[in-house]
Amino acid sequence: MIPEAVGEFQNLLGADRVLTDEARLQAYKRATIPVNRDICAVILPRTTDEVIGIVRIANRYRTALYPVSTGKNWGYGSANPVRDGNIIVDLSLMNKIIEVDTTLAYAVIEPGVTQEQLFTHLETHATGLMMDPTGAGPQCSVLGNALERGYGITPHGDHFANICGMEVVLADGSLVRTGFGHYTQCKATYAYKYGLGPYLDGLFTQSNLGIVTKMGIWLMPKPECVEAFYFFAPNESDLPGLVDAIRELLLQGTVRSPINLVHRDRALTMIHQYPWQEARGNQPLPEQVAAHLARKEHLGVWNGIGALYGTKAEIAAARKTVRKKLKGRAKNIVFLNKSKIFFLKRLLRPVVPILPSQLRSRIDITEKSFGILCGVPSEISLKTPYWRCTTPPPTRNIDPARDHCGLLWFAPVIPMHPSEVRAFVQLARSTVHAFGFEACFTFTAVTARAFDCNFPILYNKKDLEETQRALACYETLMDKCMKEGFIPYRVGINSMGKVVDPSDTFWQAVGKIKSALDPHLILAPGRYSLD
Amino acid sequence: MIPEAVGEFQNLLGADRVLTDEARLQAYKRATIPVNRDICAVILPRTTDEVIGIVRIANRYRTALYPVSTGKNWGYGSANPVRDGNIIVDLSLMNKIIEVDTTLAYAVIEPGVTQEQLFTHLETHATGLMMDPTGAGPQCSVLGNALERGYGITPHGDHFANICGMEVVLADGSLVRTGFGHYTQCKATYAYKYGLGPYLDGLFTQSNLGIVTKMGIWLMPKPECVEAFYFFAPNESDLPGLVDAIRELLLQGTVRSPINLVHRDRALTMIHQYPWQEARGNQPLPEQVAAHLARKEHLGVWNGIGALYGTKAEIAAARKTVRKKLKGRAKNIVFLNKSKIFFLKRLLRPVVPILPSQLRSRIDITEKSFGILCGVPSEISLKTPYWRCTTPPPTRNIDPARDHCGLLWFAPVIPMHPSEVRAFVQLARSTVHAFGFEACFTFTAVTARAFDCNFPILYNKKDLEETQRALACYETLMDKCMKEGFIPYRVGINSMGKVVDPSDTFWQAVGKIKSALDPHLILAPGRYSLD
Repeated sequence: MIPEAVGEFQNLLGADRVLTDEARLQAYKRATIPVNRDICAVILPRTTDEVIGIVRIANRYRTALYPVSTGKNWGYGSANPVRDGNIIVDLSLMNKIIEVDTTLAYAVIEPGVTQEQLFTHLETHATGLMMDPTGAGPQCSVLGNALERGYGITPHGDHFANICGMEVVLADGSLVRTGFGHYTQCKATYAYKYGLGPYLDGLFTQSNLGIVTKMGIWLMPKPECVEAFYFFAPNESDLPGLVDAIRELLLQGTVRSPINLVHRDRALTMIHQYPWQEARGNQPLPEQVAAHLARKEHLGVWNGIGALYGTKAEIAAARKTVRKKLKGRAKNIVFLNKSKIFFLKRLLRPVVPILPSQLRSRIDITEKSFGILCGVPSEISLKTPYWRCTTPPPTRNIDPARDHCGLLWFAPVIPMHPSEVRAFVQLARSTVHAFGFEACFTFTAVTARAFDCNFPILYNKKDLEETQRALACYETLMDKCMKEGFIPYRVGINSMGKVVDPSDTFWQAVGKIKSALDPHLILAPGRYSLD
Repeated sequence: MIPEAVGEFQNLLGADRVLTDEARLQAYKRATIPVNRDICAVILPRTTDEVIGIVRIANRYRTALYPVSTGKNWGYGSANPVRDGNIIVDLSLMNKIIEVDTTLAYAVIEPGVTQEQLFTHLETHATGLMMDPTGAGPQCSVLGNALERGYGITPHGDHFANICGMEVVLADGSLVRTGFGHYTQCKATYAYKYGLGPYLDGLFTQSNLGIVTKMGIWLMPKPECVEAFYFFAPNESDLPGLVDAIRELLLQGTVRSPINLVHRDRALTMIHQYPWQEARGNQPLPEQVAAHLARKEHLGVWNGIGALYGTKAEIAAARKTVRKKLKGRAKNIVFLNKSKIFFLKRLLRPVVPILPSQLRSRIDITEKSFGILCGVPSEISLKTPYWRCTTPPPTRNIDPARDHCGLLWFAPVIPMHPSEVRAFVQLARSTVHAFGFEACFTFTAVTARAFDCNFPILYNKKDLEETQRALACYETLMDKCMKEGFIPYRVGINSMGKVVDPSDTFWQAVGKIKSALDPHLILAPGRYSLD
């Protein structure tokens, strides 16, 4: 039935927005994880009405559709569907910023709106508002990341928590507005998210129950000041104290944004590529090489980053509390704000051309990581996938999937009990070391009570043996962690089967809802779902 | 089929936990809103297994069940079902506090756990934790209020946002654990709420899709200091400036808990009963009587209350910002903390017996309202329903439904645009005045972008004419506000029909989910639902 459906899609959208030639499809099949999906076609709607038309055609021909916003789901499958034989619905042409309310601090956006686009809009229109960027780079969809429940590290780091009001096309072609939006006259649609009656937004995150074509997203007024704090601890054994400090700072509300705790080995992947020569071809990276590189980069074994937002006086008070909580737990704490960075750059300006490139890049990274805390999307996190690549990352327009980077994200949630964090670290490290990979921990305090451990398995995708080993490592790690109760907050398209258990009443209930809303199972079959 | 079902319930629970005699049912039929439901029986399970057994019996006999936690849904119907002919499932005997984690600051509770019970548990076990109390009094269910998306005014004021992990009995008798809970080995079940795959918790709030038998609730570590701030503005026209100040303080994160803005006429209902004599029998309360009483009580026309939580230094810095934002917008600001109250009481102790009762009660109210900000449930808000009663509220064990108080809650959400707030005030006031009732506004900043206006229509339920007038007033007000786009965040059992529109695709989608999860429509028919 696919050819007939494709014909109908061409009638609806015109031939230029229905891609079927292999060369065009190839770009959608790229991924940093080892998959090779059979994709039938890619269609590119421009309006919600076209999405409704697409869904109706798909129902008639029983065609499986796989919607993506911009397809930058790095490390989880990029734009690839969970199963073979789907048609990708690429929503990137639906990229209107429909409204920005500067008083109530929100925007209403379509799926194709990228981080860079939203940021630029907020700046050029002098809205006085800032967004929370995620690490997936400037070209990543804001809406898509929020639907995957991605996160950042500003006070609006929990992206799902800052969605307010969705417009969703269901599989039967009906258009549903969640929250208060279906009371079309409502004045508070983008100011209060729960609406009246059941709160449905959660249903359309990490699921295959509808195509979100529009959503409200809360933004922040730019604060008077932003002050980053960086802290460093020299020993593995410093971890429990840091966990306690981070939890206490968040629970008591001194810090209102997620704090990141980055292991030395992860930090190295952000500023280096695998030092094959120093490692003499060994895998994983030998301890003494890692320790040597870390010393050169002034890295601790554990490196923390967080930020304070508010007035000067509020930040001064919070700074005291941060110092007190970290005292005896971290070795150094450095506070940094815009004026300090400005001053530093100004001071160094005359000598920049003669500075070692390492120091120049260090200043650049510091500035960009500070930028992220201020709502400026950047590509700094996108360098990590190039760790074991044989080519260096490009200086801009980084695309790990295009450049054959090998990256498998594993992202389990760990409660902020020091003993649990330590148990997880030991389990994960021993597992990946046995397969010859580095243990690249970043703990992000996505709540005051739990870390998401953002854990990449980095490999050279051009090397078949290493690729197979990476996949085996990933699967072993996932199995072991699931067994020990460290469950991921999000998984790649290759792992849905591991987390969706047909005998579990939770997934059975999700299955019943799926059948009720999408009886022909046309939307993203298998995505966080039995069907 | 009801008698057969009742027989089966008796077999399951024993005769003493199946109530059918009219005298016992009478207590469940009481309400502060004018309804008179035909209730068949009340059954009282003690365990989740019993709830599962009940649901299975109900499916066999097609009996409609109406679950209540403690039935204290004051002003919205108390324990009464939406429709006639239901059997009430009273969950108040399921009142175990299953777990309190003092490190991660959460509790796991059953539906019957009351605010007082949780508070007492936290205190007597010296957990160092505090809860957020809602205004419905010490005997109100914590879980029930959270499922209705009720709120309080501490940093955990958004009760639904602080639910983490539910256990739900579905209509088919299956037991579903939401979030991570269905991965039974998971370590982060009560530390991270979204789980993996669709986030379902919202489905079980303001709905009839399942019976929640257990849930995790996040608590706060007691802060070093709590400082309340009260602010007063003398004129109606001060409202826009106050709205701006409140929004700015919340959006920038200086204040992290909902701020309340209480109109003079509402404040009077909390400390007085209707002054029939002074009003010479007139309704609504004449302006000059209200103004006179307000002067005696040192009330502004608009009265604000909020609080700061943190270390001494953090609070000192935030206090400065609060002062600055309110300057020129409020006339007076008073900051109050534990030591000031202690000092004041100590100072006054020798003279308390000879103080005018009014002043004594004022001190008592101040202490109790400060207590609420510190997580201590109290009955102060429960006095309001007695405003037009002919008898005074009892000094404790206040029960407005038992005491024939007339209270209809209307609770629309208003975006924090001053013009919208003013438009709503004018509309609501002119409407209720025309019916002879006071306009009792409390605006609670449930988000940084929207107020819930907690608006009671208070009447004498023993007076038939006044009761009918109150109902007509409520319905007119609701119709007008809905038309103008001020939609309620929650409605009473008498108003479901007004907000659930069968032609709306939102409610159609909810209907499909309902049919999929509860094909025989046995759970709470008509509750925020077509069926």
